[in-house]
Amino acid sequence: MKIKPAELKMPHFARKIVGKRKAGLPPGSVVHVGEKKAEKVTIQLIDYDSKNVRELDVKRIEECFPFREKKTVTWININGLHDTAIIRTLGSKFGLHALVMEDIAHTMQRPKKEDFENYIYIVVKMLHFDADAVDVEQVSLILGENFVISFQEREGDVFDAVRERIRSGKGVIREKGADYLTYRLLDALVDNYFVILEKVVDSIESLESELLTNPTLGTLKKINSLKRELIFLRKSVWPLREVVGGVEKGESRLIKKGTLIYFRDVYDHTIQIIEAVETFRDMLSGMTDLYLSTVSNRMNEIMKVLTIIATIFIPLTFVVGVYGMNFQYMPELSWKYGYFLVLALMLAIFGGMMLYFRGKKWL
Amino acid sequence: MKIKPAELKMPHFARKIVGKRKAGLPPGSVVHVGEKKAEKVTIQLIDYDSKNVRELDVKRIEECFPFREKKTVTWININGLHDTAIIRTLGSKFGLHALVMEDIAHTMQRPKKEDFENYIYIVVKMLHFDADAVDVEQVSLILGENFVISFQEREGDVFDAVRERIRSGKGVIREKGADYLTYRLLDALVDNYFVILEKVVDSIESLESELLTNPTLGTLKKINSLKRELIFLRKSVWPLREVVGGVEKGESRLIKKGTLIYFRDVYDHTIQIIEAVETFRDMLSGMTDLYLSTVSNRMNEIMKVLTIIATIFIPLTFVVGVYGMNFQYMPELSWKYGYFLVLALMLAIFGGMMLYFRGKKWL
Amino acid sequence: MKIKPAELKMPHFARKIVGKRKAGLPPGSVVHVGEKKAEKVTIQLIDYDSKNVRELDVKRIEECFPFREKKTVTWININGLHDTAIIRTLGSKFGLHALVMEDIAHTMQRPKKEDFENYIYIVVKMLHFDADAVDVEQVSLILGENFVISFQEREGDVFDAVRERIRSGKGVIREKGADYLTYRLLDALVDNYFVILEKVVDSIESLESELLTNPTLGTLKKINSLKRELIFLRKSVWPLREVVGGVEKGESRLIKKGTLIYFRDVYDHTIQIIEAVETFRDMLSGMTDLYLSTVSNRMNEIMKVLTIIATIFIPLTFVVGVYGMNFQYMPELSWKYGYFLVLALMLAIFGGMMLYFRGKKWL
Amino acid sequence: MKIKPAELKMPHFARKIVGKRKAGLPPGSVVHVGEKKAEKVTIQLIDYDSKNVRELDVKRIEECFPFREKKTVTWININGLHDTAIIRTLGSKFGLHALVMEDIAHTMQRPKKEDFENYIYIVVKMLHFDADAVDVEQVSLILGENFVISFQEREGDVFDAVRERIRSGKGVIREKGADYLTYRLLDALVDNYFVILEKVVDSIESLESELLTNPTLGTLKKINSLKRELIFLRKSVWPLREVVGGVEKGESRLIKKGTLIYFRDVYDHTIQIIEAVETFRDMLSGMTDLYLSTVSNRMNEIMKVLTIIATIFIPLTFVVGVYGMNFQYMPELSWKYGYFLVLALMLAIFGGMMLYFRGKKWL
Amino acid sequence: MKIKPAELKMPHFARKIVGKRKAGLPPGSVVHVGEKKAEKVTIQLIDYDSKNVRELDVKRIEECFPFREKKTVTWININGLHDTAIIRTLGSKFGLHALVMEDIAHTMQRPKKEDFENYIYIVVKMLHFDADAVDVEQVSLILGENFVISFQEREGDVFDAVRERIRSGKGVIREKGADYLTYRLLDALVDNYFVILEKVVDSIESLESELLTNPTLGTLKKINSLKRELIFLRKSVWPLREVVGGVEKGESRLIKKGTLIYFRDVYDHTIQIIEAVETFRDMLSGMTDLYLSTVSNRMNEIMKVLTIIATIFIPLTFVVGVYGMNFQYMPELSWKYGYFLVLALMLAIFGGMMLYFRGKKWL
Repeated sequence: MKIKPAELKMPHFARKIVGKRKAGLPPGSVVHVGEKKAEKVTIQLIDYDSKNVRELDVKRIEECFPFREKKTVTWININGLHDTAIIRTLGSKFGLHALVMEDIAHTMQRPKKEDFENYIYIVVKMLHFDADAVDVEQVSLILGENFVISFQEREGDVFDAVRERIRSGKGVIREKGADYLTYRLLDALVDNYFVILEKVVDSIESLESELLTNPTLGTLKKINSLKRELIFLRKSVWPLREVVGGVEKGESRLIKKGTLIYFRDVYDHTIQIIEAVETFRDMLSGMTDLYLSTVSNRMNEIMKVLTIIATIFIPLTFVVGVYGMNFQYMPELSWKYGYFLVLALMLAIFGGMMLYFRGKKWL
Repeated sequence: MKIKPAELKMPHFARKIVGKRKAGLPPGSVVHVGEKKAEKVTIQLIDYDSKNVRELDVKRIEECFPFREKKTVTWININGLHDTAIIRTLGSKFGLHALVMEDIAHTMQRPKKEDFENYIYIVVKMLHFDADAVDVEQVSLILGENFVISFQEREGDVFDAVRERIRSGKGVIREKGADYLTYRLLDALVDNYFVILEKVVDSIESLESELLTNPTLGTLKKINSLKRELIFLRKSVWPLREVVGGVEKGESRLIKKGTLIYFRDVYDHTIQIIEAVETFRDMLSGMTDLYLSTVSNRMNEIMKVLTIIATIFIPLTFVVGVYGMNFQYMPELSWKYGYFLVLALMLAIFGGMMLYFRGKKWL
Repeated sequence: MKIKPAELKMPHFARKIVGKRKAGLPPGSVVHVGEKKAEKVTIQLIDYDSKNVRELDVKRIEECFPFREKKTVTWININGLHDTAIIRTLGSKFGLHALVMEDIAHTMQRPKKEDFENYIYIVVKMLHFDADAVDVEQVSLILGENFVISFQEREGDVFDAVRERIRSGKGVIREKGADYLTYRLLDALVDNYFVILEKVVDSIESLESELLTNPTLGTLKKINSLKRELIFLRKSVWPLREVVGGVEKGESRLIKKGTLIYFRDVYDHTIQIIEAVETFRDMLSGMTDLYLSTVSNRMNEIMKVLTIIATIFIPLTFVVGVYGMNFQYMPELSWKYGYFLVLALMLAIFGGMMLYFRGKKWL
Repeated sequence: MKIKPAELKMPHFARKIVGKRKAGLPPGSVVHVGEKKAEKVTIQLIDYDSKNVRELDVKRIEECFPFREKKTVTWININGLHDTAIIRTLGSKFGLHALVMEDIAHTMQRPKKEDFENYIYIVVKMLHFDADAVDVEQVSLILGENFVISFQEREGDVFDAVRERIRSGKGVIREKGADYLTYRLLDALVDNYFVILEKVVDSIESLESELLTNPTLGTLKKINSLKRELIFLRKSVWPLREVVGGVEKGESRLIKKGTLIYFRDVYDHTIQIIEAVETFRDMLSGMTDLYLSTVSNRMNEIMKVLTIIATIFIPLTFVVGVYGMNFQYMPELSWKYGYFLVLALMLAIFGGMMLYFRGKKWL
Repeated sequence: MKIKPAELKMPHFARKIVGKRKAGLPPGSVVHVGEKKAEKVTIQLIDYDSKNVRELDVKRIEECFPFREKKTVTWININGLHDTAIIRTLGSKFGLHALVMEDIAHTMQRPKKEDFENYIYIVVKMLHFDADAVDVEQVSLILGENFVISFQEREGDVFDAVRERIRSGKGVIREKGADYLTYRLLDALVDNYFVILEKVVDSIESLESELLTNPTLGTLKKINSLKRELIFLRKSVWPLREVVGGVEKGESRLIKKGTLIYFRDVYDHTIQIIEAVETFRDMLSGMTDLYLSTVSNRMNEIMKVLTIIATIFIPLTFVVGVYGMNFQYMPELSWKYGYFLVLALMLAIFGGMMLYFRGKKWL
């Protein structure tokens, strides 16, 4: 049975929620926990101000260090977390706390925001489609005075439009600082959640028409698995809202007052996503109820047919049985029209039954 | 099967909740997102103080500019959002933030209120009936020092009574400022929600009588679809309450203290709507339960008939079967009154069964 | 079928929640909305201090005006709201806001309390029994410096004991001010809710015994309609609690510190009512579950009888059918004790079945 | 049917929640409302400091008055509330507010705490077992500068251990003041709730084993009645928590700072009770679900037996019926091995059916 | 039937929630309440600073006293709570409040944190596996100026990695104070909850595959018992979160500012655990629904088979019964092709039935 697109695959669901723990290691140990998704760690650096842009494919992490002191905005993007030496080297140079470095390498974080004196640390989940299955990638953002560092689990992300904007110099992005860049990255991440929601809508609509035309147990299973994905989405979005709300309300000096309104915009989007998820959950509950009622209705239909047939023929069969008895003395058997009288009697019984059922509105 | 008025049509429900996203555009891009509902953008301007009223059908948006400086209250109403040049031109002249202009053009906003230094930005949903289906239109209001700008998706709205009041000069509206006008517009919008609620009441009452006389699976489907519409209503009203409550509690200098009590009145109405929606949801849940019980009751009825018939006749059929056997030596067959004895036996069985069923209260 | 006292009638339930809206009227229009319950508006005035009481049947509303200036406590009670001229005249004299006058005449208010500089405006619902149906009447109270004005929809209320106390001069009421009178009126209103609750208790107990002796679909319908009434009660009591709590916590100079403890007492009563309503809802849910289980239990019982009868007799009928076949060569038919052997075989089958059912605990 | 210990009797449940109201009496009327549980009011007085203890069986309430002025701690315990003269006399002497005296005599109070200038008024519910039924008694505590007054509905309470401690002079109780005595009384009351919880545990365990061995409709009714008792417990404990929490957080000068930690301990216990009650509710819900599934499973079992028997024998009965027809020309009837062929055919049908059912996993 | 690993045994569940109360003892009585899990009380002491470590197997509790005055960090670990003399002796020396000593010995505490002037008292639950059953042990921590005292119910804990770290001197633990040690102990405790969660995941996955391949009533019972364990886990984790959150937010001078971020880390973990537990509950609810639907689906399947067979053969059996009647005058019986005509008629009925069922989509 081929069931698409109602199915977004999300295997080993329960296991993913708990994740693997590193046993017995002290806090601050920068150990990569999670699937190794990239072969090689790659590093891109974009450095810009309103006049110039410079892009760099970083080979050795130390090449990034000089940009720390420059007034221009520097965005360092690291793809791949398994080479923890890179995280440690970069972290020490940019003054990251040991626990932050640990969290960056550990991909089972809950989305969160932490304020430090010289930087803000943000962890969020990036969702994208990969061959029809939802893939979850952890993205860590470090917002400093004039730099942004982003850590991803592998190459390929939702930030290409932002890169393009920086290169082309269109819009205000080149005029603004590292806080605005952070906003743009968060905005791109949140916008991509809507793509997932649209897939969910596809699934819901396909399930709805299935429910109307031919509901089977498979339909219910698909409804159930969609519910489960919404649980997953919800688990990602609720803390995301706290993160963005925290940035918006926070009084970090790293985020300029003029940029706050942009974060409020992202915040509105996260609320919209949450509301959509909650509404979808309500809708799926309604669909479950409808499925169950349809099934029990069909059951009723079946029982009705059985009852009508049985109720009509069981008495008739009794009657014919009576005249199949072999008693030597049964007066009716020798009547000339006995047979026809019995046929007439049975017709009358049949007719009476029919009227009765019609009265009960079973027919 | 014709099912009205229990059905308020609201097609592509799930899709409407998510909406379409514009891909990869930078923030502040004023792009129209949503259905294009009007052919041509029309603009009306009403300018009034306690003594004079002046109405203008604006052809070029620049005609509105001189009114910005005047002390009189100016209400500019724009129908149609697809010509974003108008939004941009007007926005720049009246000092709107880029994100506000973006939100005005994007019709998938969640109702919200945002305070700026020189104006308040309010987005709400206007519901009205259009050929038996609920139509949702986004209305953006800009309340400035002495002007109100309203953006609608197309011509036709719920503000005619307000316009009439301004023209006739009855009541206090002409004495008061732009904040009072904003209140009157919000009040008209919220009042119209009660019209929707009345339609819902019609549907509930029609469903209730259907439930009592002839409940079918169709009844349940209609209950379910009504529930869904209430989900939709609720999604519109909850944020509306926050919006109005925010205005009432807010300390914007744009809203005079004497006007606050009016906003409190609108706020009370939104709470009344929310409570009604919640009550209706409870009622529909009760109706679902009743439907399910009625159906299972009917099923019981059917089973009882089947069981009574089968339980009476199956043993009797067995008895007549016994005397239909062809054994050469069956003493009863040759008894003179064998046949009548068997008939009497069967009557006794029948009577016993009847008493048993009466004892069980099945008859 | 006569179903009392489990039924408190509350017809057109859904419609009452929404109410009718006045279309297109500006705010502050004092228009009577609601059922016209009284033929003629009647006005009673009681004026008292610790020494004297004076009662007046007011013919013209202007007769009340001189009492405004007097130091004594004046209670003006208006029965009937359809003559809005009276409300307007009285309102202007006593300085009521236009919106307050509008709310007094509009009987679909949600219970609420509003503080003004010179008076407090309180709206609550008075419930009383009228020929076995719950009747809801809106009562508006205006508490001023030394006067209380009460507006009711018609004559007949729960305040007679208060009037009697004032006349007789027993207790502290004559020593205290208008705030204490307001408390006494609210207390009388809230106390009457307990009468309704007692009727609900009667219904619950009658339903419980019905559930134990003879549960039918009618029982469920009565449970459902009782649930609905509790929804209605809850809708009235929750805001009532806010109202009284607001008075108790409020810092209006109109309520003396010594009177606050009395309002706290009323507040405790509203909480007791709310808790009782919530408990009753829980109990009714439990009763619904029990009903459903009882019904499905009975169904099981029916199915068991059917299955036992059918399972015993269907095989036996098969056996007798075998020996009713007309084959020319059937050796058993000519055996001398064939018939008795078959009878014995059937007895054995019957016994085996019985043992099987006993093993299954079906018998 | 004897069903114990799963049943804690709590008759007239709904009625107890509402209680009787006194009609038309003014506030502050000290009227006894509730069951008269004691024949005669008895009064005990214990007066102590670290050196001396003195116990007194008070005959006339005036004997207590001299202790008011003494520096020692005085505990006056009144059993029986129907002689309201005692409450009034004592109340006036110790300066109680009229409403407090009214509440003491009215046994339908919700647990609450009220701070006055010179005393704290606490109402709680004392639960104890009386011939297998839970008995609820209202206990009012007045904590003053150096006295505690406790009002109970009748003799017999949970305070004997406290009395013993005072007499024996062991522990710190004699060193401490009236606030510590109040704590000890509350602690004894709350501790007794755990006894009730243990009875509930007994019932749950007995119901669980009943559910596993022989679930009947009676089991469900017992589960339901246990749920109802938990509703009752919850109604008593939730406000109790507020009461104790209020004392702990309150800044009354009557409670010394060093005593606060003891009240925190009682507070922890009330939270533990609440959590236990909530957990039990969850467990009972799970048991209800399990009951319903067990019943529907048994139903399935019954239907399977019926279906198997009917499906096997109905076709076979048809076959033998065919050869019981009396047509003159039926070639099979005259075949030599016709009978045995038919027997073989039926065996084959039987075998096929068996294989089919085995494939369906019904056997 | 062997059902593992879906079963984590947790016997006497309800009883464990309430626990046994000590009757009639005054507060501050240090009495051991709970199972006696250890034979003998053992005490380990570790004393360290950045340079030296010293370990001591303490025989007499007084050996610990000199360490109280030393500047180094001292960790005293007591295994076994039944020898309350040790708790009392140690408690007096280290200045613990009587109620704290009572709580240490009483193993039915709810997780909590209490701030005192010179120490913080923390109670948490340590979960570990013991022969496939979850074992719950109460751990009390006393954090003082330069010491930590931990009380466990028996030997064997989750702190070995911490001990190893102290001994080896790797990491920062030896540089930091008693507050950091407390953090490490809490962290080890919380980390172990993830082990339990992983077992739960194993159970969920095993149940899921059981649900897909062969769902029985046993499956539902296992789902139910897993739900119950989650209730238990939740009861332990919710207060744990408050405890850790309280430490993190608390302003105790005993916890240095630099250590707070570590507690925030533990706090994040407790939130992750809570979210996982809630998600698992949702998943188990979904599985219950799926089970019920599968079962009712199977029931439908059974009913369909019965109905098809009965509906086909009951009319046919009637037909053959007709021609089994023994009337002397039945014209069809003497027709040459009567038999074959009847066979043809029955074939037609059979075919018609088949078409009907196919139309109904039952085949």
